[in-house]
Amino acid sequence: MKTDVLVIGGSAAAISAATTGKTFYPEKDFLVLRKEEKVMVPCGIPYIFGTLENSDQNVSPDGGLLKAGIQLIIDEAVSLDLKKKICKTAGNQEIEFDKLILATGSTPKIPGWLKGAELENAFTIPKDKIHLDQTLKKLETLQKIVVLGGGFIGVEMADELNKRDKDVTIVEILPHALNLAFDADLSIRAEEVLMQRGVKLRTNEGVKEVLGKDKVTGVLLNSGEILDADAVILSTGYQPNVALAEKAGIKINEFGSIKVNEYMRTENFDVFAVGDCAEKFSFITRTLKGIMLASTACAEGRIAGMNLYKLSVVRSFGGTIAIFCTSFGDTSFAAAGVTENLAKERGFDIVTGTFEGIDKHPGTLPDTHKQLVKLIVARDSGIILGGEIIGGPSSGELINLIGLAIENRMTVEAILTSQIGTHPLLTAPPTAYPLMKAAEIAAKKHIFG
Amino acid sequence: MKTDVLVIGGSAAAISAATTGKTFYPEKDFLVLRKEEKVMVPCGIPYIFGTLENSDQNVSPDGGLLKAGIQLIIDEAVSLDLKKKICKTAGNQEIEFDKLILATGSTPKIPGWLKGAELENAFTIPKDKIHLDQTLKKLETLQKIVVLGGGFIGVEMADELNKRDKDVTIVEILPHALNLAFDADLSIRAEEVLMQRGVKLRTNEGVKEVLGKDKVTGVLLNSGEILDADAVILSTGYQPNVALAEKAGIKINEFGSIKVNEYMRTENFDVFAVGDCAEKFSFITRTLKGIMLASTACAEGRIAGMNLYKLSVVRSFGGTIAIFCTSFGDTSFAAAGVTENLAKERGFDIVTGTFEGIDKHPGTLPDTHKQLVKLIVARDSGIILGGEIIGGPSSGELINLIGLAIENRMTVEAILTSQIGTHPLLTAPPTAYPLMKAAEIAAKKHIFG
Repeated sequence: MKTDVLVIGGSAAAISAATTGKTFYPEKDFLVLRKEEKVMVPCGIPYIFGTLENSDQNVSPDGGLLKAGIQLIIDEAVSLDLKKKICKTAGNQEIEFDKLILATGSTPKIPGWLKGAELENAFTIPKDKIHLDQTLKKLETLQKIVVLGGGFIGVEMADELNKRDKDVTIVEILPHALNLAFDADLSIRAEEVLMQRGVKLRTNEGVKEVLGKDKVTGVLLNSGEILDADAVILSTGYQPNVALAEKAGIKINEFGSIKVNEYMRTENFDVFAVGDCAEKFSFITRTLKGIMLASTACAEGRIAGMNLYKLSVVRSFGGTIAIFCTSFGDTSFAAAGVTENLAKERGFDIVTGTFEGIDKHPGTLPDTHKQLVKLIVARDSGIILGGEIIGGPSSGELINLIGLAIENRMTVEAILTSQIGTHPLLTAPPTAYPLMKAAEIAAKKHIFG
Repeated sequence: MKTDVLVIGGSAAAISAATTGKTFYPEKDFLVLRKEEKVMVPCGIPYIFGTLENSDQNVSPDGGLLKAGIQLIIDEAVSLDLKKKICKTAGNQEIEFDKLILATGSTPKIPGWLKGAELENAFTIPKDKIHLDQTLKKLETLQKIVVLGGGFIGVEMADELNKRDKDVTIVEILPHALNLAFDADLSIRAEEVLMQRGVKLRTNEGVKEVLGKDKVTGVLLNSGEILDADAVILSTGYQPNVALAEKAGIKINEFGSIKVNEYMRTENFDVFAVGDCAEKFSFITRTLKGIMLASTACAEGRIAGMNLYKLSVVRSFGGTIAIFCTSFGDTSFAAAGVTENLAKERGFDIVTGTFEGIDKHPGTLPDTHKQLVKLIVARDSGIILGGEIIGGPSSGELINLIGLAIENRMTVEAILTSQIGTHPLLTAPPTAYPLMKAAEIAAKKHIFG
C-alpha cells in the first residue's frame, strides 16, 4: 500500500494534521493509521464517569476525515523503516509513504516508587475505550474512591464520580489542587467549589503506597495516615508514546518526547511529530515542558499539516501557552501563559492586575456568575504573559481571547484600546468588563512602577 | 466649582473615560456631570420589557465612579464657554475645568417624513429611566404592537415584548432583519428563530404612516396594506446629542457628530468627545459611519481617558469594527468588522470561509448548540476583515476574539497557528472548532485563488 502522507495516531493532533494537510495539499493522498476502532474525545473522558451515560456518547466521529477524502485504516504501526519509507503494521500490512506525521499520543504514567499501583481497582485513565468501559463497569460497585493527583484529570474525575454519589477524596502533594495552572488565590477558589460539591481534598499530602492484598483497600499517606478506599484513580500524569519513533532512530529529548523544530519537523526531514508525543517548550519561559494539552496538540497538528511540503515562517510554532479551561458545578476555571508564581520563579519582572465583576449585566439577570480575571504582565513592556479566569460558561472563549493576546505579544495598552462587544445576556458590562479592568490595573503599575 | 477634568454624560463612554482617565492621571480631579438621577445600562434597556421585572433592575451602579474617587454631580450642562473653560448648568452652577470630555450620547431619531409618530402609544426607546417607566406602564394594557425597524433594538424589543405575550410584528424596509450586521445567510436564521418564538416579520416593507386619531390604531405600509396596532415602537435609529457642543463652536461633521481625531480630541485642544455623540469611521472601509455601540463608545472613552494630558500613539483609535452580539431564545448572533456584502459593495477582493459545528463536545452533552462561524478575508493578504457567528451563549466572547484578530490585522494563517483552549462543557471540539475550520476554508481560497 502507498500514500503520500501517513499519519500515525487517531486523536486530536492526528486529525488536525491530516485535515489541515489535506486542505493545503489537496493533490496529495493522506492516510490515517490508528489502532483504536473508536477514538475517545480526549477531554471528554472524565465526563463518561458522570455527566454522560457511557463511553459511546464520547466517540469522536470519523466523518470529518472521511469527508475530506482522507483514508482511514485501523491497525497498529509496529515498525518504521525511514530509509525505505515504509511502515509495518501488526496486521502485516506495509505502508509506503513520502511524508510521515507521528501523532502517537501518550499513556498514563505511574511513579516508579509507588507500591500497590498494580492492585485490582487501581485505575489509570488511558485514552482507550475498551479499558475505560471496563473501569466504568468495575467502578459501579465501588463506593470509596481516592484520586491520586489533583491536576485537571484528577479534579475532573473526582467531580464526575461525585456526581454518581461516590465518596471521593483527592490527594495532592502540592499546596493546592490545579496548582500548576493557577496561582493560589484562584486555586483556593477552585478547591472551595469542589468541597461545596462534596469532594474531599487532602493537599500538601504525599502518597507512600496503595494498600491491599489483591484489591485496593486503602492509601497510605506520607504522614502515616491511612485513607480507606475501594478504588484508586491514578491521575499522576502521562508519558509520551515514543517507542515506535525511538526504534526507528528518531531523536528523543530529555523529557522522553520526540525532538521537533518550530515546523514540527523531527531531525529526519520527512518525519513530523505532533501532539503529546512531540517535544514542547514554553512560549513565555522558553524552557522545555512536559505539558500535554489538546490546544497545543491541535495547533501543532495544523502547523505540521501546513508545512509538509513547503515551509512558511508565518506557519510556525512559537511554543506552548498551555491554554486550557475546565468547569465544575457552574463555575469555570481557565488559564493561559504563565502564572504569577511561575513568572517570578523564572525571574520575570512582572506586575499583575486582578478584577472581579460579573459575566452578565445587569447582575439581576438570571444565571449571572461572578467573573474574575487576573493578568500577569511584563513590567517594562506591558506585554501580557499570562491570564487566569474564574467565571461562568463564557470563560472558555474568554481565555482564548487572552491566549490570542499572549501569542501575539500584545500589551495591556493594546487591550485597553480594543473594542469589546458586550451584551446583557452574554458578557460582562462594557464599563466593568473584568479583562479591561484587570488590564487597567496592570497598566497603572506598569507605567507608574 | 473647579475640576481638572469635566466629563459631561453618564453612560458607557462617560464612565469609561472618567475611570480610565483617573487611573492614568490619579493626581487630577475628575468630575462627572450628568442630568439623569439614575443611569440605565444601555444595552439592558430592551430587557426591562420582558426578562427583567422593572427598570430598577437595569440601573448602572455608581459605585465604580465613586470608589475611583471621581466626583458625581446630577445636573444638566446648558452652555460651555471654551475660552474661559466654564460649563454652566441648569441648576445655575458654574464648573471650571482644564480638560473637557463630551459624552452626551444620542436620542431616538424619527424620520421626518413619518406621519403619526407623535400619536399616543407611539413609543421611542430613549436611555431615560423616567420615560421608559412610563412606556412600560402604558404597554401593560396594549396588546398588538408593531415595531418599526428590524435592527438590534427593534429585534430585541420585539422578542422581549413577545415574552410578555404581546402580539408583535416587526416591519423592516431592508430585505432582512439585522441586515446591516449580518449577511443574508445568517440573518435568515435569525428571522427563523424570531418567528419560531412567535414574532411576526414583515421585511422588504416600508412604512408610510402611523395611523390613529389621538391614539395609535394601526400602521399604513407602502404597499397600501394596514396593520392594526395598539402601539408602535419606533426603533428607527438614534441621533447624536450635539446641541451643547455646536453652540460652543465645536466642529460637527456631515453625520451630525462631533468631529474628533484618533485620540478622540475635537478641533479644540482641551476638548475630547466620545461615544454616540462623537464621529465614527470604519476600521475596515475607512469611511464615516453613523454607528452607535457600547463597544465602540467604551474603547473611545478609554482612549480619551489615557490621552488627556499626554498623547501616545499606542493609545489611539483605529476606527470602529462595529462589534456586537445579541441573543434571543437560546440562540446568539454576533458580528464584527464588515459583512461579505458590504466588503464587496466597497470593492474589497475577498474570500470567505463558513463552518457550522457545535459549541460543546461531544454533542451528546446537555445544552449543546450549533455554532456557525463565517469569516470575511482579504484574498491577497489573508487578513481578516469580518466575522459573523450564530451559536450558544459563548458567542459573545468568541466574537471578541475575532474582533481582536481584526483590530490587530491578523491573517487566517495566524488563526491557524493559534492555540485554542477547548473543553467539553465550554467550547467546540479542538478538531472541529468552527473558527479554525472557517479560517482553514478561507485560507485555502486565499492561497489557491
